[in-house]
Amino acid sequence: MADNKKMVDAITSMETDFAQWYTDVVKKAELVDYSGVKGCMIIRPYGYAIWENIQRILDAEFKKLGHENVYMPMFIPESLLQKEADHVAGFAPECAIVTIGGQNKLSERLIVRPTSETLFCEHYKNIIQSYRDLPKLYNQWCNVVRWEKTTRPFLRTSEFLWQEGHTMHETEEEAREETIRMLDVYADFYEKSLAIPVVKGQKTEKEKFAGAVETYTVEPMMHNGVALQGGTTHYFGDGFAKAFDIKYTARDNQIKYPHQTSWGVSTRMIGAIIMTHGDDNGLILPPAIAPTQVVIIPVAQHKEGVLDAAYALRDKLSAKFRVKVDDSDNSTGWKYSQYEMKGVPLRIEIGPRDIENNSCVLVSRVSRAKTFVSLDGIEESVEAGLKSVHDELYNRALENLKNRTSNAATWEEFLDIAENKSGFIRAMWCGCSECEDKIKDETGGVKSRCIPFEEEHISDVCVCCGKPAKHMVVWGRQY
Amino acid sequence: MADNKKMVDAITSMETDFAQWYTDVVKKAELVDYSGVKGCMIIRPYGYAIWENIQRILDAEFKKLGHENVYMPMFIPESLLQKEADHVAGFAPECAIVTIGGQNKLSERLIVRPTSETLFCEHYKNIIQSYRDLPKLYNQWCNVVRWEKTTRPFLRTSEFLWQEGHTMHETEEEAREETIRMLDVYADFYEKSLAIPVVKGQKTEKEKFAGAVETYTVEPMMHNGVALQGGTTHYFGDGFAKAFDIKYTARDNQIKYPHQTSWGVSTRMIGAIIMTHGDDNGLILPPAIAPTQVVIIPVAQHKEGVLDAAYALRDKLSAKFRVKVDDSDNSTGWKYSQYEMKGVPLRIEIGPRDIENNSCVLVSRVSRAKTFVSLDGIEESVEAGLKSVHDELYNRALENLKNRTSNAATWEEFLDIAENKSGFIRAMWCGCSECEDKIKDETGGVKSRCIPFEEEHISDVCVCCGKPAKHMVVWGRQY
Repeated sequence: MADNKKMVDAITSMETDFAQWYTDVVKKAELVDYSGVKGCMIIRPYGYAIWENIQRILDAEFKKLGHENVYMPMFIPESLLQKEADHVAGFAPECAIVTIGGQNKLSERLIVRPTSETLFCEHYKNIIQSYRDLPKLYNQWCNVVRWEKTTRPFLRTSEFLWQEGHTMHETEEEAREETIRMLDVYADFYEKSLAIPVVKGQKTEKEKFAGAVETYTVEPMMHNGVALQGGTTHYFGDGFAKAFDIKYTARDNQIKYPHQTSWGVSTRMIGAIIMTHGDDNGLILPPAIAPTQVVIIPVAQHKEGVLDAAYALRDKLSAKFRVKVDDSDNSTGWKYSQYEMKGVPLRIEIGPRDIENNSCVLVSRVSRAKTFVSLDGIEESVEAGLKSVHDELYNRALENLKNRTSNAATWEEFLDIAENKSGFIRAMWCGCSECEDKIKDETGGVKSRCIPFEEEHISDVCVCCGKPAKHMVVWGRQY
Repeated sequence: MADNKKMVDAITSMETDFAQWYTDVVKKAELVDYSGVKGCMIIRPYGYAIWENIQRILDAEFKKLGHENVYMPMFIPESLLQKEADHVAGFAPECAIVTIGGQNKLSERLIVRPTSETLFCEHYKNIIQSYRDLPKLYNQWCNVVRWEKTTRPFLRTSEFLWQEGHTMHETEEEAREETIRMLDVYADFYEKSLAIPVVKGQKTEKEKFAGAVETYTVEPMMHNGVALQGGTTHYFGDGFAKAFDIKYTARDNQIKYPHQTSWGVSTRMIGAIIMTHGDDNGLILPPAIAPTQVVIIPVAQHKEGVLDAAYALRDKLSAKFRVKVDDSDNSTGWKYSQYEMKGVPLRIEIGPRDIENNSCVLVSRVSRAKTFVSLDGIEESVEAGLKSVHDELYNRALENLKNRTSNAATWEEFLDIAENKSGFIRAMWCGCSECEDKIKDETGGVKSRCIPFEEEHISDVCVCCGKPAKHMVVWGRQY
């Protein structure tokens, strides 16, 4: 920060321009920087620390369920990607391709992985022979590339970071269970760690993953009512296994194909956090993944004993929380604004009078409510304060999700809502992709989010074509 | 593993064929699998778990010293790589190049990062304005690509995983301190976590990193006397800063260029572990990074109480150690061989008679010595057992390093040792690269490892040309 910059830069208000607000926040909270490579972002320390917290929590969950991490090459020979027809059709348009290596033209072009089903399958063919080799529950944390025309930090970038789980099972039933189990892991993570409610459901045929039999999704709603595909899990049946000739000797001595799943979440999640919880003062981070959970601001820090008290408090809290003291010579006002911008969940103010009273002030980043608490029970107060920030964030997001979800029983209602309201539309659907196309075209972008696990009977017929309805679908615009 | 495979496959002995022994171990201990992509490897769960342990320990060290993790794009526009002349000259021959993105020929070719100095510099130009912005202590964990002609798992692969630290400092002195500090971090990690002694020193002009002013290295010696470049740190001066126009306002209000370092270690370290410690029974893993530190083998597991005792022991030890029970129906003999192959540092055998005596048997993977210990103090016994495995490994490697290091005072001695002995040669050097070339040519591959921090006076003149000597150099063949 420049020497003379003692005020936090203002950011565009959400109401004025949500897109600009987002851009301001990611830049000014120092989450990302742009790079000279089109569509690729630099994830700065504060942004990357969020990703590290996400990884730590999810990785522990994956391992608890028996998954193991591996690393596959990032290059896929073109012929390998082409082995499963639907898969290559889905990904070919957005591939980055290496054609030169070591100053020579390559005899076979290499695709920079957009996803790694094909590589996992090639490996699984080598290592799966018997039912004793199953299940295989593998995951990898890595970078992937999908060449995008329009990009925005975290939401849509040509390169992004993610995890991709790839599992192989003896039976269809086991693989289906895994597909739903991992969806639940994602949903729990969104709700319990990110304080973001999600709609859980199945993608329509049109929206499913290239090569999957079924795709499931968790869909959070951003503050402005736009959806973000938050994480997906796929059931593949034995389609890839057949394409890659992966077979095993089953318990009954028959030769069978194993059943497959894959599932992934990415750095997009950081976009979801920003757009679900942020406000006009900047970022608000859910405590579970905040790089700094508590910032201690010494008040009148030049006075004797103030800094010592602040350091002592930090040392006391550091055993349980991620804490920092800002003892810089910036003004307290500047510091307050700075850590609000950075979304630190709790602020502690401590000055001479507080020290005299053996107390300090806790300030919630969400409500900005101030509480005077004793230094004696400070761990419990901070614990409660963080829990309260989480709950406030979750409840606020849930309320937003409810307020911005409308039912449409007729085509006119649907079009009216699509034009005049933001958010999700719940409406009946006949099951054909022509209606999805028509809805998208006539609304300028409303798409099926999913067939939610919890459907409701809104009417008997498809909101679009009037034929008998098969499902209730949640519709919405998306990032 | 196939059903009927009840014996662990034999591996080639080290004496017979060290290279084949290495290949057998990496395959049969299930560290890697080959992929269809030339020169790229699949890191399997057991191999990746070693890497995760390495990452965990090193990352904590880096952070303790104030470093922050970031993520840079993996593509470098060709013009960016070309900004620093020595740097591009060093890396251009081994680049993989993306020429197509989203089905279109790219207007500028993108290099898949072989290292990221150029990307960090481009970013540093944006974020460094004042001395208050310094130091910048960044690191990233990522994949990099260097197109290699001859590849071997872990040792030399076209894609590999590593960490690369990139730091910027106000003064030359600070940057030089960082360069040595990080070399010490690497040396400590090798010795304390990997049980591998290293020679620390400075690379010669000829062997230094492309674009660096000075390169420092830690050089462990493999069991067969061949060196592996174990980790390097580089002092860049302000060369890149000038090439990238990175300037800051100093404390004295002058505009100055910051001073730069970088440093990295990679998945090669796993190769060093294998080749330093392994034996004819397979891998031997130092306890600090072993995915399983203790394997419990129930003896006569069909007898009442044996499995329960094994599980109880596992539960007791799991709080402090990475423990697993093998309760499969393989024979105990097979299990012993299997976990020796996988290099698990300690084995616990527990059978009916042990249970009766309230004891169990500890077996060291290094010495294979058996100790009967009481179940009461089992945590302490395991702690001591693991420490002893570490010490045995370290001492054995140190002895090997000493035994295979020879002094050469004359050119004849040098040639004789190079031809007839394995290991390092310590000899005086005049400082010119012509002698390095001659030594390499006439010995068929002996190169300068480094000018060690601890030099000795072996003679007054260069072992090669007879001119006055400037330094003692450690020479050796390398992987």
